[in-house]
Amino acid sequence: MLLEKLNWRYATKKFDPSRTVPQEKVDRIIEAARLAPTSSGLQPYELIVITNQDIKAKILPIASGQAQVVDASHLLVFAAWDTYTADRINEAFDFVVAERKLEGERLTNWNAYRQRLLSAYVPRDARTNFEHAARQAYIGFGLAIAEAAMVEVDATPMEGFDADALDELLGLRARGLRSVTILPLGYREADKDWLVNLKKVRRPREKFLTEIR
Amino acid sequence: MLLEKLNWRYATKKFDPSRTVPQEKVDRIIEAARLAPTSSGLQPYELIVITNQDIKAKILPIASGQAQVVDASHLLVFAAWDTYTADRINEAFDFVVAERKLEGERLTNWNAYRQRLLSAYVPRDARTNFEHAARQAYIGFGLAIAEAAMVEVDATPMEGFDADALDELLGLRARGLRSVTILPLGYREADKDWLVNLKKVRRPREKFLTEIR
Repeated sequence: MLLEKLNWRYATKKFDPSRTVPQEKVDRIIEAARLAPTSSGLQPYELIVITNQDIKAKILPIASGQAQVVDASHLLVFAAWDTYTADRINEAFDFVVAERKLEGERLTNWNAYRQRLLSAYVPRDARTNFEHAARQAYIGFGLAIAEAAMVEVDATPMEGFDADALDELLGLRARGLRSVTILPLGYREADKDWLVNLKKVRRPREKFLTEIR
Repeated sequence: MLLEKLNWRYATKKFDPSRTVPQEKVDRIIEAARLAPTSSGLQPYELIVITNQDIKAKILPIASGQAQVVDASHLLVFAAWDTYTADRINEAFDFVVAERKLEGERLTNWNAYRQRLLSAYVPRDARTNFEHAARQAYIGFGLAIAEAAMVEVDATPMEGFDADALDELLGLRARGLRSVTILPLGYREADKDWLVNLKKVRRPREKFLTEIR
């Protein structure tokens, strides 16, 4: 089922500006990203969903004029934590304690794990921490792409934008976030899309996979 | 459908060593990773599937003694390109030319894009290139996690291993690859797994999402 949908999907080049993705489907795509597993469960990224047409128009030049950002009805921005801090780690760990009502030995073990993470992450340079957080964001990005395909919403994974300019426009740096990738959601305008009828190309399995039996 | 499965899945701590994932399901999980979209379609990573018990046993100490690597029937290793090279980029672009039988204006445009990529990536430092390739590997990782859930195979996303030691064991560096994450596949041994009955914890939607309307 998912594989069939992954074969159906493609990096849509032309969205139909007259069509809007229903909120119910957008919610499912957001939920897939929210449910994504991440390292130590920290979920070190946030999602920004833009439907405001003026903001999308301001993003157009930031995204090298790629029209998907204005033609798609929803624009998702994945923004990773700029670094790990004690506050962020403690907030995530405290939330787990509350949600799982941890106590006794479980709480002791959990807090020991918290300390190991604090010792490893907090003193580490911001670039290394950000790169680690960015990778986690890409897991959620992958799951959002998967769910978009499942509900037959077209989505174009895009990295070709000026992240610093987008961060500035959206005020992300002030929130300790850095944009890493964007995902317009909408519906293909097939008769105006040069890519839609071209063959999907992937490296053959034997050049992708090594089996150690 | 996918969301329900994402709620079903969890980071399995105890696999049943007596159960083996059928090849047909493993193939579907590999295929999901292979179909994952990547930046410019370069697919800058490979997948290693390990079923050999001796090799898995050698990975156990490299993975801090986490028993999933030996108890799970299949161990997937996601290994990203250590950098972008002209050869790698040209091979990927040439393959697209052949698969899509590009000619005329399409071929001209494609080769102009190739030149832009070569100019941008080849002179760039290896760390930046590797980090970019690693992020792409995480998209495939996300899709493999999604498909594992879809076919009800337990999978544990794991970063807690010594990547240099694993690269050495598997001879990855000689192939220009660096391991970034591993994914054991198998079936949960629920009565021995402390995590299976604990509540799944994710940040609430309002702390994860910003809407710009």
